[in-house]
Amino acid sequence: MISSDPTELVEQARGGSRTALARLLTFVESGGPQQLATAALAYRAEVPYVVGITGPPGAGKSTLTDQLINVVLEQGFGGARDVDQVSVLCVDPSSPFTGGAILGDRIRMQGHATNQHVFIRSMATRGHLGGLSLAVPDAVRVLGAARFPLVLVETVGVGQMEVEIASAADTTIVVVNPGWGDAMQANKAGLLEVADIFVINKADRTGVRETRRDLDQMLDLGGAHEWRPPILETVATESTGIADLWDAVVNHRTFIESGQLQDRRRTRMRVELDKVLSAMVRSRIVALAHGDDYEDQIDSLLAGTTDPYRAAAALLGSE
Amino acid sequence: MISSDPTELVEQARGGSRTALARLLTFVESGGPQQLATAALAYRAEVPYVVGITGPPGAGKSTLTDQLINVVLEQGFGGARDVDQVSVLCVDPSSPFTGGAILGDRIRMQGHATNQHVFIRSMATRGHLGGLSLAVPDAVRVLGAARFPLVLVETVGVGQMEVEIASAADTTIVVVNPGWGDAMQANKAGLLEVADIFVINKADRTGVRETRRDLDQMLDLGGAHEWRPPILETVATESTGIADLWDAVVNHRTFIESGQLQDRRRTRMRVELDKVLSAMVRSRIVALAHGDDYEDQIDSLLAGTTDPYRAAAALLGSE
Repeated sequence: MISSDPTELVEQARGGSRTALARLLTFVESGGPQQLATAALAYRAEVPYVVGITGPPGAGKSTLTDQLINVVLEQGFGGARDVDQVSVLCVDPSSPFTGGAILGDRIRMQGHATNQHVFIRSMATRGHLGGLSLAVPDAVRVLGAARFPLVLVETVGVGQMEVEIASAADTTIVVVNPGWGDAMQANKAGLLEVADIFVINKADRTGVRETRRDLDQMLDLGGAHEWRPPILETVATESTGIADLWDAVVNHRTFIESGQLQDRRRTRMRVELDKVLSAMVRSRIVALAHGDDYEDQIDSLLAGTTDPYRAAAALLGSE
Repeated sequence: MISSDPTELVEQARGGSRTALARLLTFVESGGPQQLATAALAYRAEVPYVVGITGPPGAGKSTLTDQLINVVLEQGFGGARDVDQVSVLCVDPSSPFTGGAILGDRIRMQGHATNQHVFIRSMATRGHLGGLSLAVPDAVRVLGAARFPLVLVETVGVGQMEVEIASAADTTIVVVNPGWGDAMQANKAGLLEVADIFVINKADRTGVRETRRDLDQMLDLGGAHEWRPPILETVATESTGIADLWDAVVNHRTFIESGQLQDRRRTRMRVELDKVLSAMVRSRIVALAHGDDYEDQIDSLLAGTTDPYRAAAALLGSE
């Protein structure tokens, strides 16, 4: 029988056990004491390099990810097969169970299911205190503890949450299609802000030139930065442009490792810590609002013997 | 020179000083220690009856409010001039300074400025911990402390916040115009939920019948309740229908005083207390995120000697 002790499971996952790894990831999704114990171990381990991939539904992200896996395993970061295993986290916040599962399955079905160098997991939000936006970074660290040097985080959708999850990465790829405008209108600025690399997938269709011009114009408006996101063209279904895309990721990694990487990771830690703080405090307020003390304060308020500020201070002081 | 001591000011406001009252309301808007001291006094006082008035910009709310003031002072709640003074709080969350001021001025200019029985105030969000959604209930209590038996709270707009502010009332009036559909589409359900009385103002225009039918159908869909919001017609610019509108308010007051009033006020106190709790906790998190301990925790996270959950717990424990 498989252990339910996070310390043992981390040892087994480091030794290559996929069952142990899967169990740790379930802990992370489910919340509770085992999540905390798992996090305590995982955050001590190496941090994997994280590549975020986001874009509207139907942009071809899972086919692209599938193709990328082959190139990554062959080329590695330095052309020397230094990436011996790759993991993919598939996140669909809009449909926590089925959607995510289908997404993962789509990649899994394309032949990697039996590949010992590839680990694919759909993330669902089950009981984690802070939902997916905290469960995903925890999962990334668990994969780091299991010695994965690279994690691809794929999110479906272009809403604020999807973009936020994908952009908690070292390199963020935004995938669009020719004639992308309408699909992304709602959050164009958000996508522009997080993109380190743009990919125009399905580049065998008409409208590539207009889409490239559109992206270029928006990048021009954004002003000069040290790194200007390159705009690549791929046809993922025909494996076209995938090697160039990986080259762009490697270039970006070289760029940020020469300076920004530590800042990025510090910012990410801040965002994550703030989320945990907010989530903990929210759950304290919910607990407070269900206690006897709370009802007593409401009674006092209705009786006119206190005011909301003193009542709140009394409740917060009495935690 | 006017006092800056809330206790003295409340005494003066109870004695009829409008200068003292205005100063207390400024304290409430501005936040800080004087706001807390003012709230501590105001929440001990009588609770005025609160009538909320909301609807889209241009629906004619300020003309309607202006007309209502005359009827209220004449008729009172019991037809016996038992409302000796009326106050109006004008709230425009979308434009905290100018918009609110213009709104108040619009009513003031219509002849009540020199009327000792009428007090009109535009609310602006300056420094209050919880913004307007807490400053307005505080202001209502301050008016109660100044012996106002009735407060009209008028908000411009039909967004969630506007509706929330107006509906923190004992009786909520939703003002629409013939052909209202488009203007409210975004938040029809929210408005339906809070309305105790519907007014079709500018009822001399075409489309009244359709608007009434539309409202009636939506009320039918909402199912049976003890109180079905009446749908009244007014032409505020010609003083038509105003007396009937006030009768409807008095009827609703009689209805809720026979049962729901205490529940409503208890719910309102809960909402208010929860907002204060959240606001206090948020400001604690902001304070935490600017302290040395926070940076120490970030350093530990980057060094891999803690995880976000332990770091957050340590920060919250060290408050």
